[in-house]
This record gives sequence, structure tokens and C-alpha cells, in this order.
Amino acid sequence: MDDIVSPALLIDEDKCRRNIRHMIAKAKQSKVIFRPHFKTHQSRIIGRWFREAGTEKICVSSVTMAKYFAADGWQDIMIAFPVNIREIEEINELASRIQLSILIADSSVLPFLQTHLKQPTGFYIKLDVGNYRSGFHPDETDDISRTLEQATLNTLLSFKGFVAHAGQTYQTHSLNDVQKAYRQGSRLLTAITEHFRNDYPSIIASWGDTPTCSLVNEFEGIDEIRPGNFVFYDLMQFHLASCDWDHISVAVAAPVVAKRKMRNEIIIYGGAVHVSKDAIEVHDTGYVYGEIVKLTEKGWERFNEPLYLNRISQEHGIFHCPDELWDEFNPGDLAGVVPVHSCLTADLLRDKFYNLKTGAFFVEER
Amino acid sequence: MDDIVSPALLIDEDKCRRNIRHMIAKAKQSKVIFRPHFKTHQSRIIGRWFREAGTEKICVSSVTMAKYFAADGWQDIMIAFPVNIREIEEINELASRIQLSILIADSSVLPFLQTHLKQPTGFYIKLDVGNYRSGFHPDETDDISRTLEQATLNTLLSFKGFVAHAGQTYQTHSLNDVQKAYRQGSRLLTAITEHFRNDYPSIIASWGDTPTCSLVNEFEGIDEIRPGNFVFYDLMQFHLASCDWDHISVAVAAPVVAKRKMRNEIIIYGGAVHVSKDAIEVHDTGYVYGEIVKLTEKGWERFNEPLYLNRISQEHGIFHCPDELWDEFNPGDLAGVVPVHSCLTADLLRDKFYNLKTGAFFVEER
Repeated sequence: MDDIVSPALLIDEDKCRRNIRHMIAKAKQSKVIFRPHFKTHQSRIIGRWFREAGTEKICVSSVTMAKYFAADGWQDIMIAFPVNIREIEEINELASRIQLSILIADSSVLPFLQTHLKQPTGFYIKLDVGNYRSGFHPDETDDISRTLEQATLNTLLSFKGFVAHAGQTYQTHSLNDVQKAYRQGSRLLTAITEHFRNDYPSIIASWGDTPTCSLVNEFEGIDEIRPGNFVFYDLMQFHLASCDWDHISVAVAAPVVAKRKMRNEIIIYGGAVHVSKDAIEVHDTGYVYGEIVKLTEKGWERFNEPLYLNRISQEHGIFHCPDELWDEFNPGDLAGVVPVHSCLTADLLRDKFYNLKTGAFFVEER
Repeated sequence: MDDIVSPALLIDEDKCRRNIRHMIAKAKQSKVIFRPHFKTHQSRIIGRWFREAGTEKICVSSVTMAKYFAADGWQDIMIAFPVNIREIEEINELASRIQLSILIADSSVLPFLQTHLKQPTGFYIKLDVGNYRSGFHPDETDDISRTLEQATLNTLLSFKGFVAHAGQTYQTHSLNDVQKAYRQGSRLLTAITEHFRNDYPSIIASWGDTPTCSLVNEFEGIDEIRPGNFVFYDLMQFHLASCDWDHISVAVAAPVVAKRKMRNEIIIYGGAVHVSKDAIEVHDTGYVYGEIVKLTEKGWERFNEPLYLNRISQEHGIFHCPDELWDEFNPGDLAGVVPVHSCLTADLLRDKFYNLKTGAFFVEER
């Protein structure tokens, strides 16, 4: 890793590919469509790892990402974010070349789409199943009916189904909580889908979020899953028990720049603009921004007593290091940081992905 | 702003230039050298606004930024971050063309610099005056002496002085606290500088941080100031009383994508990857990620009762909107967000700066 001189994201290709294979196998076994979310990696190279494993449908969270992946040959893309009508030109352009689907989370965009949408486009209705972020409440059956009547008057729009994202699982603390959130949310999603299937027989129920897709084995009534984070996982998912430690496929490599023996603290070049400010609370330690790991020839190893990235500012990261590990880190060395939230870290370091297997930086076309 | 279709950072050029002129005038009046920190804007175009106002010396927080600004003609650059010896090649290359200064925060880098530094380079000793981030403690006079003896054996290294950054002022809650932090910290910095001036007569005391540079008028014993954030200011600085509302020169323009009347919430395309996860606690509201403002032809306006960006995820932002303002925001409109921490927001949106005065996106050379 001698060519890593500034913060980079180490990618363990074997672990990524294993995570991908594992989720594909699970989807097959459960007979659900697999439409992974590519917002986590935002990488054409990693996208190809999915393609090589058989993936054909993807979802993304912005028009920009949809354009980026369409340019690499992806033909079936859902933009899993409430449609941003200011980007109608880009949407029309994309929909002229690929099977594009958008999300309707508010019926007030329909008059604009009626006059400005120029290409056949699929749409899903966003349901809010307890995340309180966006989408119709499952009780609003009348509103959904009216929205569908209005939307399907537009001959360019075809109704594909309902999507839900149980983001509330990121706030849970146990397998039990995740399963409960899944049971409650999926029941709402499948009930609505069943209800409207009388009028729209081909619609599907699409379900997101890595914790439930990782922890649930039976997707009764669900037709499609859209997990994203699982390709990397991270410290948050590990603490949620969505994954084992060994499934985490990314770590930041951050140069050690100084040590402060007086406070037993080590300062790394790796701060908010590299790791992100997402934090989780860890027993006995408080909020942390990542777990410090020892980098090895092949990847990284945890310490017996976990070390955490305790504080960060724009470029600095600081961690407390006990005496017995004090000599592990010296200025000029690289420290490893398993990030709290790999989606945000990967977004920040998206042009600094380093493949551990090939020993080279990714060369992405941007 | 019709050409803004996705999150962008609105830059009020007049306010930026006024902030720059004001800080330059203050430095002149106080007879201190002005070496602004360019990590906040990371923009060659904004850098030129400083140059046009007479600035010649700058500081940055990474070798990458130093290279970026050196390519635009900046000849005197301090990298105000503990020297990262893994970047020695880039440091040598830069030091061959410009007056480069680095920071020594740990003497253990000196043997490496002795053998690998190839070009004349200035250095400052980093002092920790209460921020507990990096640098020598002011009590460690003996350590500093030994470090200086060792460093000055290297004929390529020339000792320029001491630098302190009172980052603890970002945690304060009143003008009084900021002034107290300044008095305590600057006393430590100037005492150390005086002490070593016997042996190194030309050294200076260099002081950073926007709150004190904004609020303090007499810089007794200080030779140089290095504020950065003041060019933009932000919600955090406003709440610290470092600036008036009218000094804030940036706001994120974020498309409204959906409304949820049931919860009186509005969803914008503007999340953690645009605004950053930095938050401040606001009375009666809890932690917020920005203040929602009304965009106008010329800029933005506050609402009588402030609205705040209450929740964010990767791409989504959500704010609570009372009934009386409900019709102000509709899908397809742009909402304004004055960010909590403009340095992180500008880093995230650095290729999406939009100049309100010219009505055009910045065209930066990257």
C-alpha cells in the first residue's frame, strides 16, 4: 500500500463479491427479484461485479447516478427517490434509452409530468411504512387511488408497484427489533399491493434496506428487494448484527501524522471530509466515527479491545490508544478505520477506492 | 436559478468580498499578517477575490489543496496540518516551486525529513492551546527545545514560528467565552514565542480560528492571523455570534420533491452528501442541520419564525413547515438551506458553486 499517501478506501474485492453472491442466492431462494441499490458504492467497477453475478436491474438515488450507470450499460434503473421534476430533461433523455422508473411520493408532481414527460417511464408509489421520511401513509388508500387514477391518465407513465424502505431499522438495537420492523412494514406494503392488484394486476411490492434483507429469510408477499449497503456493510450494520465482522469489505486507510503521549492520543489524516460525521454510540465510549483496525498485507484485523475513532474535524481524526498498542502506530504508518456508515464514506472517497486484491487504485470513468 | 436542477451552493459574491475586505482591514489595523485559510472554499475563483484584495500568503489543510492553489499562482502557502510524511514527494515538488511551510506536531517525523526532504522548506511548531487536537503542550518547553535543535540541524528546514488554532471556540456559547478562550490561548502562544525568540529572533506567533478573529479587536503579541470560515460564515458562527446574519454568504439551493401534510413536513433533495451531517442544537428544536430560508431574486431571506432542517439521510432532507408557510414550498421549487458548517458543505458541493451575482455556475479548473 506504499502508493497510498492520503486517505483512501480499501476495498476487499473477495468480500464484496461474496456479499453480492450471498444476497443474490438469498433472493433466488426466496423467489424475489434482486434490484440492488448502487448509491452505496457509486462505482462502475463494483457495478460490474454485480453484473458478472447475474444482476440486471438496479436502483439509485439520483438522476446523476442513473446517468452514470446507464453509460455503463445498465438498462433497467429505478431512481428510488421522490421524482425531482427540475431534472425532467435528464429524465426524458434517460427514459429514451433505458427502462427508467421513477418514484411518486406526492401527487402534486403529476400535472407537470403530464405536460413535460416525453418518454415512456415506469413509476412506483412510495409508501411510508414507519420511517417517516417520504411517501404515502398506508392508511391513505383514497389518496393513493386518486393519485393512480391521475397518473395513469398519462399514457407515458406505467404503474409498476409500491416501494417501501424501512429506514427505521437503522435505529434499532436488536435482531428482534429489526424483525419486528420488517413484519409491521412488510404487512402494510403487501396489504396495499394486494388491494390495488385488483385494478393493476402486474404490480409488485418492492422492499428496501440492508438490515432486514440481511436478517430476514422469508419475504412473504414481497416481490423485490433493494438492499444497497450490504455490498460493503460497516460498523453500524455490525453493531445492528446485520453482518458478521468478516463481511465488512471496506476500511479507510489513513496516514498517522502525530502522537500525543500526554493524552495517549494518535492523530490521523482522516477526518469529516473522508470518513463523514456519521456516528454511533458505543458502550462505555460514547459516540464514535469508526473502529480503528490494524492494516495487514491482506486487509485488516481488529484489536482485542476495540479502538475507536473518537473525534474528528475537517481533516483530523483522533483516537485514544492504550499503552500496550502505543507502538503499533507511528507517523508515516497507515491506520485503518472501519467506517460507521460506508455509504457516506464511499461517497466522500469515491475517487480514492483502492483494490486490496490487485494492489491498485480503481480507475473509474467519471 | 432555472439552471439549478440539483443541490448547489449559492455564493453571494458581494458578501464574500465584503467579508474578505473586512478581515483584511482588521488585520491591517491590528498590524498582523493576514494568511487566510483556503480549506473553507477550496476554490481558485474565490482565491482570486482574496488576491484582488491584496492577499499574498495563504494556508490550506492538505498537500492536495496546496498543489491546487500553487497551480493558480499562489507562492506562499502554509500547510496547516501536521506534516504527512507519506506525501514527501509532493512536498518536495511543491517546495521546489513555492515558499512552502509545513507543521511539525511530533518530533518523530524529523529523522525521516532529514533523509527525504530535498528542498528548502519552512516549518512551524504546532502548539495545543486548549483544543486538544494536535501539537505540543505549552508546558513542554524542553520537548520543544529538543525538537527545534533537531529540526534546525536540517539545513533545508527553516523555523518560522509557532501556530495555534483555538478550535475550542467552536464549542463556546457566548462572546465572553470566545474572548476568554482567546485570552488564555494567545497568552500561551505569545509566551512560548517570546521564550524562543531569544534563539530564533525572526519567528512569529500565528493564530487561527474564525470566532476569535471575528470577535477580538486587539491581537497583542500575535503576528499573524489565519481565519478561514469567515469568507462564508454559517449557522454555527451566527449562533456563536461571530457574525451577523447578513454576513453569511452561502446557502444550499435544494429542490423540493415532496410534501407530507399529515406531518407538516417537506422533503427536499439535499441530504448528508450535500449539506453534511454537522449539526447544532437549537433552543426548543433539538439538533438541526441548517436553517431553511426563502430564496429570492437576489439571495435569501429568513422566515420570521426560523425553520430548520430537522432530519437528513444520504440524499433526503426533511423540515417541519407550519401551516402559514405551507404554500411557500412546492415540488419543483428550490428551498434554501443555510448550512451549519459551511466548510463541510462547500467541500461536498465544491463543483456545484453557483454565483448569484453572475447567475452562473463557477467554472473551476480541477
